[in-house]
Amino acid sequence: MNEMIKLIHGDGGKHTKILIEQLFYKYFNNNILLQEQDSATFTAVQGKMAFTTDSFVVKPLFFSGGNIGKLAVCGTINDLAVSGAQPFYLSSSFIIEEGFSMQSLEEIVKSMGQTCLECGAKIVTGDTKVVEKGSVDGIFINTSGIGYIINGYEVKTIEEGDRIIITGGIGEHGTTIAVERYNLKVKGDYKSDCAPLFAFIEELKEQFPSIKIMRDATRGGLATVLHEFSSLCKLGIHLIEKEIPISESVKAINNLLGLDPLYMACEGRMVLVVKETEAEKVLDIIHSLDQGKGARIIGEFVKESNQNIFIENGFGGKRLLSPLEGSMLPRIC
Amino acid sequence: MNEMIKLIHGDGGKHTKILIEQLFYKYFNNNILLQEQDSATFTAVQGKMAFTTDSFVVKPLFFSGGNIGKLAVCGTINDLAVSGAQPFYLSSSFIIEEGFSMQSLEEIVKSMGQTCLECGAKIVTGDTKVVEKGSVDGIFINTSGIGYIINGYEVKTIEEGDRIIITGGIGEHGTTIAVERYNLKVKGDYKSDCAPLFAFIEELKEQFPSIKIMRDATRGGLATVLHEFSSLCKLGIHLIEKEIPISESVKAINNLLGLDPLYMACEGRMVLVVKETEAEKVLDIIHSLDQGKGARIIGEFVKESNQNIFIENGFGGKRLLSPLEGSMLPRIC
Repeated sequence: MNEMIKLIHGDGGKHTKILIEQLFYKYFNNNILLQEQDSATFTAVQGKMAFTTDSFVVKPLFFSGGNIGKLAVCGTINDLAVSGAQPFYLSSSFIIEEGFSMQSLEEIVKSMGQTCLECGAKIVTGDTKVVEKGSVDGIFINTSGIGYIINGYEVKTIEEGDRIIITGGIGEHGTTIAVERYNLKVKGDYKSDCAPLFAFIEELKEQFPSIKIMRDATRGGLATVLHEFSSLCKLGIHLIEKEIPISESVKAINNLLGLDPLYMACEGRMVLVVKETEAEKVLDIIHSLDQGKGARIIGEFVKESNQNIFIENGFGGKRLLSPLEGSMLPRIC
Repeated sequence: MNEMIKLIHGDGGKHTKILIEQLFYKYFNNNILLQEQDSATFTAVQGKMAFTTDSFVVKPLFFSGGNIGKLAVCGTINDLAVSGAQPFYLSSSFIIEEGFSMQSLEEIVKSMGQTCLECGAKIVTGDTKVVEKGSVDGIFINTSGIGYIINGYEVKTIEEGDRIIITGGIGEHGTTIAVERYNLKVKGDYKSDCAPLFAFIEELKEQFPSIKIMRDATRGGLATVLHEFSSLCKLGIHLIEKEIPISESVKAINNLLGLDPLYMACEGRMVLVVKETEAEKVLDIIHSLDQGKGARIIGEFVKESNQNIFIENGFGGKRLLSPLEGSMLPRIC
């Protein structure tokens, strides 16, 4: 199959219709999408909703552990999940370069459909644009999503002593993208951690009163999320280096590249701030899920006049974790 | 001000934050957006909701009557409006080329904010990606939107005799884009009809029981919308050529270019199918709005074995309106 995307696939006429019916409906099959109207319509129930959007421009499009399609669905599902919301409805909008391989498009769309299925989310509305060769680098995908907030979750004020939990090894997505984009000749067992985080939310919903805030550590990595938290609550952070889960491969590759995994993107890791007294209990629940086996309590919030983040190494030494100044690596998501 | 967008504006760190706070918050100022969470959250009320998405890749980015920002907001508001929904919350997601002018970005964002204000819609969540020079043609924008369907509007079965109304002159957006993209040396008073259509919906809500279906005539123009309707209801259509509103400029320019305005995109025109007995009443209401002064009843649905669309000219002759086969003009929206 050497078929390629042509400009007419984006003209809104006959060929767009064929693409939608033969490809998108095949993998995004649900009653709302099949209404074929300008908007998807559905009955809303009273409650608190969450709404989010992300555009994905990752390079390369296919990488160990995923592709731009899986990433686009995980990204939006995860933004809903860390808001305490169950993902319900997603939109997907494609901007495709003329000449793009139909087979690659199918692989991407298939991953999107599968990832939605894992979480019970549905792609209910979409859009396809095709632009001339050279006007976009392959394919860019936007997903937006809406969900219902469960068990009345809300962000709460972070206080001194609150513990920080990360659900697994950091920097795996960013490191994979770096290695594969630049065809670096490194050995090691690396792959993107790209995954939907909704399962955690479902398991943790009874603990919501003890959870202050949750966030997925994407662009800018764990360090950037921690700086956001610290600037929200005007407290400092004390991290214990040996508790931060980093795989040997990620460590070795970043060492080689002179990069710091603390700033490297994750696409399937969540950072939670939890009341000190409940932190172990929350950690146990996270450990009960396959996806959370590598979770750790990595530090706590402390009174610190300059809202600094310190990392304590094994010998009691401390170093300062500064905010990300320039991009480590563009187009990681 | 010669400032330009840099890759670091998209890295999710400090510079992204500055861009968001200094530019986006300036024009998209509302309480939900200012929560600064991964998702916007708000209370949903029981009712039927509509959800839609569109990516905008129009070229040129600025044109008579609008720019990509105004178009991006109108496009999504109009998809909601023709679903009978009042637009509530929009997302906006930018993919920007490194080196893009900050001044142009500000002009685009400003138009988005203004167009939202006209309809009472709010941009409550967003995303910004910056890609290397040459990886995207200037700027692409995705907007998604959610709204509440008013007065229980729903699409109804089109029947023989139902009348077709268009709310104003056709082909004005597509024609403007063609002339300005190719710097054609044509005279004439043309400009894009790009505008939000929600005002019609509000005025027409009491007439919803007589309105069978509504659609905005974007990609593929009036002809494409009529073909979609005809294939939905398995009826033919009889159009009266002299009733189809086309400005003299649009006629002349399309004549010169060898293009057919029936297939040229509108971005502020709605096509309505209305019960025969109520068509004049609906037309009067549309005429009562400035935006609807040029509205006309242009034809009706007829029993026709091949679901053909015929246009009758002033001399009683008929010609067949075929479905759009190839793109007239890519990147009109």
